[in-house]
Amino acid sequence: MAAQQFDPPSGTRDFLAGDVRTREHVFSVIRGVYERYGFEPLQTPAFERLDVLSGKYGDEGDKLIFKILRRGEHEASGEADLALRYDMTVPLARVVAAYGSQLPTPYKRYVSGPVWRADRPGKGRFRELAQFDVDIVGSTSPLADAEVICAAADALDALGIPGFTILVNSRQALVGLLEAYQVPAGLGNGVLITLDKLDKLAPDAVVRELTEDRSLAEETALAIVGDLTAPDAIDRMRAVLKDSDAGQRGLAEIDRFLELSAPTIGASRIAFTPRLVRGLDYYTGVIFEVVAEGVPGSMAAGGRYDHLIAALGGPDVPACGISLGVERIMLLVAGDITATVPLEVAVTVLDDEAAVALTGLAGQLRHAGLRTEVYLGGSRKLARQLKWAADRQARFAVIYGPHEQAAGLAIVRDMASGEQHQLPLAELAADLTARCAQ
Amino acid sequence: MAAQQFDPPSGTRDFLAGDVRTREHVFSVIRGVYERYGFEPLQTPAFERLDVLSGKYGDEGDKLIFKILRRGEHEASGEADLALRYDMTVPLARVVAAYGSQLPTPYKRYVSGPVWRADRPGKGRFRELAQFDVDIVGSTSPLADAEVICAAADALDALGIPGFTILVNSRQALVGLLEAYQVPAGLGNGVLITLDKLDKLAPDAVVRELTEDRSLAEETALAIVGDLTAPDAIDRMRAVLKDSDAGQRGLAEIDRFLELSAPTIGASRIAFTPRLVRGLDYYTGVIFEVVAEGVPGSMAAGGRYDHLIAALGGPDVPACGISLGVERIMLLVAGDITATVPLEVAVTVLDDEAAVALTGLAGQLRHAGLRTEVYLGGSRKLARQLKWAADRQARFAVIYGPHEQAAGLAIVRDMASGEQHQLPLAELAADLTARCAQ
Repeated sequence: MAAQQFDPPSGTRDFLAGDVRTREHVFSVIRGVYERYGFEPLQTPAFERLDVLSGKYGDEGDKLIFKILRRGEHEASGEADLALRYDMTVPLARVVAAYGSQLPTPYKRYVSGPVWRADRPGKGRFRELAQFDVDIVGSTSPLADAEVICAAADALDALGIPGFTILVNSRQALVGLLEAYQVPAGLGNGVLITLDKLDKLAPDAVVRELTEDRSLAEETALAIVGDLTAPDAIDRMRAVLKDSDAGQRGLAEIDRFLELSAPTIGASRIAFTPRLVRGLDYYTGVIFEVVAEGVPGSMAAGGRYDHLIAALGGPDVPACGISLGVERIMLLVAGDITATVPLEVAVTVLDDEAAVALTGLAGQLRHAGLRTEVYLGGSRKLARQLKWAADRQARFAVIYGPHEQAAGLAIVRDMASGEQHQLPLAELAADLTARCAQ
Repeated sequence: MAAQQFDPPSGTRDFLAGDVRTREHVFSVIRGVYERYGFEPLQTPAFERLDVLSGKYGDEGDKLIFKILRRGEHEASGEADLALRYDMTVPLARVVAAYGSQLPTPYKRYVSGPVWRADRPGKGRFRELAQFDVDIVGSTSPLADAEVICAAADALDALGIPGFTILVNSRQALVGLLEAYQVPAGLGNGVLITLDKLDKLAPDAVVRELTEDRSLAEETALAIVGDLTAPDAIDRMRAVLKDSDAGQRGLAEIDRFLELSAPTIGASRIAFTPRLVRGLDYYTGVIFEVVAEGVPGSMAAGGRYDHLIAALGGPDVPACGISLGVERIMLLVAGDITATVPLEVAVTVLDDEAAVALTGLAGQLRHAGLRTEVYLGGSRKLARQLKWAADRQARFAVIYGPHEQAAGLAIVRDMASGEQHQLPLAELAADLTARCAQ
């Protein structure tokens, strides 16, 4: 069998002990912060009915959905009836539709777990990837927008993520921008999609795409890109947006959002960023992204999406939220967390006679909360078993060979110092529990 | 849209806050116990390559695998290339093959999470169901068998599961049974599969199936079923198995297992059960099931399976393990756990002017670890907001209306007693933190 046949499927990963512990730590810290904000947990199935997901992510997104073949007599049809969840937002919309009045108002929920996307795998890009989302459904208050970004920033702070920045814009401000530069109505969406590339492409490449692919007049393209990439872009856009109703609404929205977020996040870490677009066109109010040096794309992104839940088949309720990209966050925390959990007690087994007494001892130690292992290998040599205890980073080893059994005593060895002391087997559990508590 | 369109897919469930908290509690308790035994966590992807899973679960099992359609240009082929994991054992075998020497010896791992089986959904039977497995790979020691059953029993005890019983048998003893009753070689497996139904079917129905479907002589069928269902079945089987080499090995295996497990589990909760077969024919040594009143089937099951990892494509290493059926365990713990987490502080918002100061206050309280929510609704009436605070089970409410702002003071209301006291806004965070710590 070829070696790669033992690899996990392309774009997925196995997480061994250290990875699992690091990831669990990250999930646990985020969960702790979100709980302090009063968000409530939700879990939905890994798959949804295909019709619930289809047509919700645009043509490009639809192609990336993992579809599940029908079963039994229908398998031969080659048709799918289920699909792995692609994000946490469509399942949220379904839950809001299904449980409406049973949910608190507003419904503040957090959810974490994998989503699946049949993207081309690459560095930091996976087909099974974890997200940690918070959303608030049923509030139009700007306090709700501020709350989700503050919760996300607090979570990143709690993880010790260094030097992140929050970029803020508003869908209304973008509508105002199109108005102010007199972009023809039919071109607006395409123009915004291209402007969204200003964080990756050079300005002249964006101008070229605007004129060649988006049919925008060159003069307009140069003006927009020039303003958005100028050192004083914020001032320019504030001036430009003054001439549009939507632009004025957008600026007011952004300013209120910054004002409400600054006490928690710190004004220096969050800024109006006129070139921020966010690809998805379902946003209706403020939009935001969290970026950091050394992390490709954004670590987190979200905004207000007041009609998305209705568009997804749920009731027409206002909503806002933010999704943390756990895989990108892991790039900044991976090295920091202790991956190994040392043993407290390693119990050696020098002959079969003693095994019953020693497993009984191990049971007592575990009931007392001590991480304890019994030697399970085939060797009956003490040196070999003490090496195993050292490999497992045990604090103490228990030795109970024929000589000790005859004397009615057992030996406790301090693995760091090599010091040993003897005592009756019946007193071992109490002795070790006391020592490990020190 | 029809109402059932908002239901999760057949055989799957949405878990709202209370359910998630209960389940997380169960996972956390089990994890704590398994960590004390020195097991290390593992996580594998939700799906595997189809060829890794195919042919591993017998004809019946294969039909229950959820297969994932190929993507892009290959979608139209109607073929599958991936499949959702059906258990945790085949992924373990793949991991052992892939990471062999990087893993500790023996490799003691725990894993929890959903598996997916396209079974007909029914009461307590789901298509997405959680398992919590421990396995020890690379040890032939009877101590390893005892360790996995002790770990599982400790986990059930830690969850407060009442009155469970552990049934024990051995594959060798079953081989011995077939020998002792002179069951023709070709009939053995079928006979065992039918005998496995003695916990559900009446003895005469099992005799009928043995003679009609399994071609066993009626005399033999009556003898086996009579012995296995007799009040003194254990004594009868001990006598019968003495005449067979395999039977003697099986009895020795069972006795050692009981002897090593009894100090931790208590001898009264674990018993040799001659009629226990376990459907899966990959077991090679002791086999066991955990059963309890009110739980259909078994809550946990496992045994020694020394050649399974090789059969699954991995190296030929000995192994044993046990799988906890979380959904069945939930039947016995569901009522016991507090599902709601009350708020510590509910912050009312009586006008927009105060909102910035109040979100800042909420940030301080959350940083101090207090579960705090800010009112996000549209009402500006105090009575309405205090009702919200009561609904959220808040311990304290903060009131900071125009009157208080003018006086430079804020009000803290004890929601249980209705008592209120005033103090400067700047002193609120310290005051509430101190009160909540009481």
